[in-house]
Amino acid sequence: MDKVLTLETINPNMIKIEYAVRGPIVERALQIEKELKNVSIIRIYYKQIQGDKKSFNEVVKCNIGDCHATGQRFITFVRQVTALATFPHLLEEKSFPEDAKSRAKDLLTACSGSSVGSYSHSLGLELVRKDVAKYIHQRDGIESNWENIFLACGATEAVKMLLEMISTTGRGSERAGVMIPIPQYPLYSATNSEYNNFQINYYLDESDNWSLSADELKRALTSVKGQCIPKAIVIINPGNPTGQVLPQKCMEDIIKFAVDNRLILIADEVYQQNVYQPDKYPWVSFKKVLFNMGPSYSGKLELASLMSCSKGYMGECGYRGGYCELLNFDPAVQAQLYKALSARLCPPLMGQVALEAIVNPPKPGEPSYFLFVKERDDVLSALKDKADITYNALNSMPNMSCNPVQGAMYAFPRIHLPPKAIQEAKVGLIKH
Amino acid sequence: MDKVLTLETINPNMIKIEYAVRGPIVERALQIEKELKNVSIIRIYYKQIQGDKKSFNEVVKCNIGDCHATGQRFITFVRQVTALATFPHLLEEKSFPEDAKSRAKDLLTACSGSSVGSYSHSLGLELVRKDVAKYIHQRDGIESNWENIFLACGATEAVKMLLEMISTTGRGSERAGVMIPIPQYPLYSATNSEYNNFQINYYLDESDNWSLSADELKRALTSVKGQCIPKAIVIINPGNPTGQVLPQKCMEDIIKFAVDNRLILIADEVYQQNVYQPDKYPWVSFKKVLFNMGPSYSGKLELASLMSCSKGYMGECGYRGGYCELLNFDPAVQAQLYKALSARLCPPLMGQVALEAIVNPPKPGEPSYFLFVKERDDVLSALKDKADITYNALNSMPNMSCNPVQGAMYAFPRIHLPPKAIQEAKVGLIKH
Repeated sequence: MDKVLTLETINPNMIKIEYAVRGPIVERALQIEKELKNVSIIRIYYKQIQGDKKSFNEVVKCNIGDCHATGQRFITFVRQVTALATFPHLLEEKSFPEDAKSRAKDLLTACSGSSVGSYSHSLGLELVRKDVAKYIHQRDGIESNWENIFLACGATEAVKMLLEMISTTGRGSERAGVMIPIPQYPLYSATNSEYNNFQINYYLDESDNWSLSADELKRALTSVKGQCIPKAIVIINPGNPTGQVLPQKCMEDIIKFAVDNRLILIADEVYQQNVYQPDKYPWVSFKKVLFNMGPSYSGKLELASLMSCSKGYMGECGYRGGYCELLNFDPAVQAQLYKALSARLCPPLMGQVALEAIVNPPKPGEPSYFLFVKERDDVLSALKDKADITYNALNSMPNMSCNPVQGAMYAFPRIHLPPKAIQEAKVGLIKH
Repeated sequence: MDKVLTLETINPNMIKIEYAVRGPIVERALQIEKELKNVSIIRIYYKQIQGDKKSFNEVVKCNIGDCHATGQRFITFVRQVTALATFPHLLEEKSFPEDAKSRAKDLLTACSGSSVGSYSHSLGLELVRKDVAKYIHQRDGIESNWENIFLACGATEAVKMLLEMISTTGRGSERAGVMIPIPQYPLYSATNSEYNNFQINYYLDESDNWSLSADELKRALTSVKGQCIPKAIVIINPGNPTGQVLPQKCMEDIIKFAVDNRLILIADEVYQQNVYQPDKYPWVSFKKVLFNMGPSYSGKLELASLMSCSKGYMGECGYRGGYCELLNFDPAVQAQLYKALSARLCPPLMGQVALEAIVNPPKPGEPSYFLFVKERDDVLSALKDKADITYNALNSMPNMSCNPVQGAMYAFPRIHLPPKAIQEAKVGLIKH
């Protein structure tokens, strides 16, 4: 008998989703990983068997910024706070420092029934939202209202909710248009497909270190005229997968463009801690740039800024902790978003706990301060070294070139096909 | 200037969402909680002030099954495993039992880079999925294929993905129809609104302990003929918020009805551990009933069964751990669902760790066994007592009646309005 659910009857938007980061290549990598493991088991028992035809014995997955999977160590303080909140018996242990204990105690007091096993408010624990606001205030020198901050299951969930909210559920030219960079992080294209948004591609300029010009934004928007209702622009800064850090002038142009064209700005700023030449290429938040542009802009742009505990020096992807700060949103719209978030109950408590340890890290004079600073700086300096190594290695290869990695954790190299290969491909095309 | 996003321009489905469980009543409760806290702070400093006009000094939120928030204690083994996986230094500690250490070690080996800070496979760690399959096998005596199991951010995320997948994205009579019980758990109505599914209400029979008859299902389906494309039926067993446990005969009728009417069955079985009179009203999984009905049914019904670590004796809501087992789904459809899940990267690792501790609990002979059994049974017996107390209290009140709580964690009482109140209301209606 036929199935009720078939490719013909399920949600067509779901079929349209493409997500290469977790697609067939990852499946193949997992398969190879298993083959390698089996070979090594066989080898242990039957040393004479040499069935392994592969020239390597380990798979390192670099398809996604999975920090700990590729050797980055966790930050002791973050894990001490999370362990203490998990198992409060440990609060009696002398081996845990007092500052970690004090954070964990505050968190437990903030949790219903003093347990991370209870639900939090659907937007996250008030304590954590307030400490996120303090973190933003300290970062930008601009006040942040904790009620405009919601916590999420990674920044990913916040992105999905925003792009769902933007959707008009219309068809054809009634669809909501969302501008995204190319090259992009495929969450954006996948989520636009999921909610039937119209994807408007703007291109980063590889020849100018993945820069972004107002002209290109105009071109992109003009090119889709009449095909959709443009509603949002997504900017990823530092760039994923392109690794650039946007200059302030460029950010001002983007803000002007968004305001002039009545677009909300979704600022994916999850790599804000991954900046490798801060003197030469400093990272500044869109919020700060916006406020620096004065009241004729700062009160106008609807800005959503995303941050996560998955990247930076902490790299705690598995905890699924993230936040979003909303600025200048219509309170009625914000209320609708908050209501929709309430249906999924609450963000993972352990992600909230990890986020608290990150936005409220050890301060000078606290017992964990020196270790924290050392671990943080070691990770960031190792990432900087890797960025340089990658850049140099790629550029030393024949027919390969790559822009410097100023931020984030990615290099996006260019392969220059030799004329002969292009010639051969053309002949092949004609033949077939 | 007008906002880009207004109630007129955002996703209309989002506006349609209703979610009372986290709506204005909760907001009011939070407000009262704050007032009480402020009053108590004032009292400490100025003992003479007696500004508190409330006759209570604590708010206990029973709007949702938030176990730990209402005093339920965590299970030591679950928290030991999660603490060990969080902070592996603790593996050296003698105070942790060997079985908890061995679970944590296995989990860490299963994690990329031996860290819960890494992403897992988007469907969850293979280790946990396999142990979920073993748990199901042991529960039902029927083989379970771990590849049909995906882990989620609570059962909630799985429900949302299933209802999204079912959506046709059509309008009017082209919308997908989803049968849900009334009274229901509002996640279902909210999610149907979110994905524009047509809600088909079937009514549980309060006069017969919230039973469900095939006649009522037929009536409900017939009543919406031509208004939608019926695709799924949701059954919550044990019932939320009605607390009944379905008899096997009733489940057979539901299965026949679903197969005959070409509906997939979404079995919300998250309260499978919350059964208070197992001798008289035993809980059986839909999967088991289906297989007992023989191959003419067992190969036909597309069944999705949900389970979570938020309920039962563990009550670890904050961890957001859950799973879904799919049965008889078209492999191509299952692949689409799995692809869609990959865009959100992975379920929270700590939820997966907690789930592992629950589906693979201490076994006889292991050091944690006796404590685990004691803690589990204490919680379940306290819940049973509370169920009885609630039932008796409600039925002892004038103009109030309530069915017995056989399972889950809810009582759904009936208020019998006195004739005079009804009379008064009628007069009021006429006046206005």
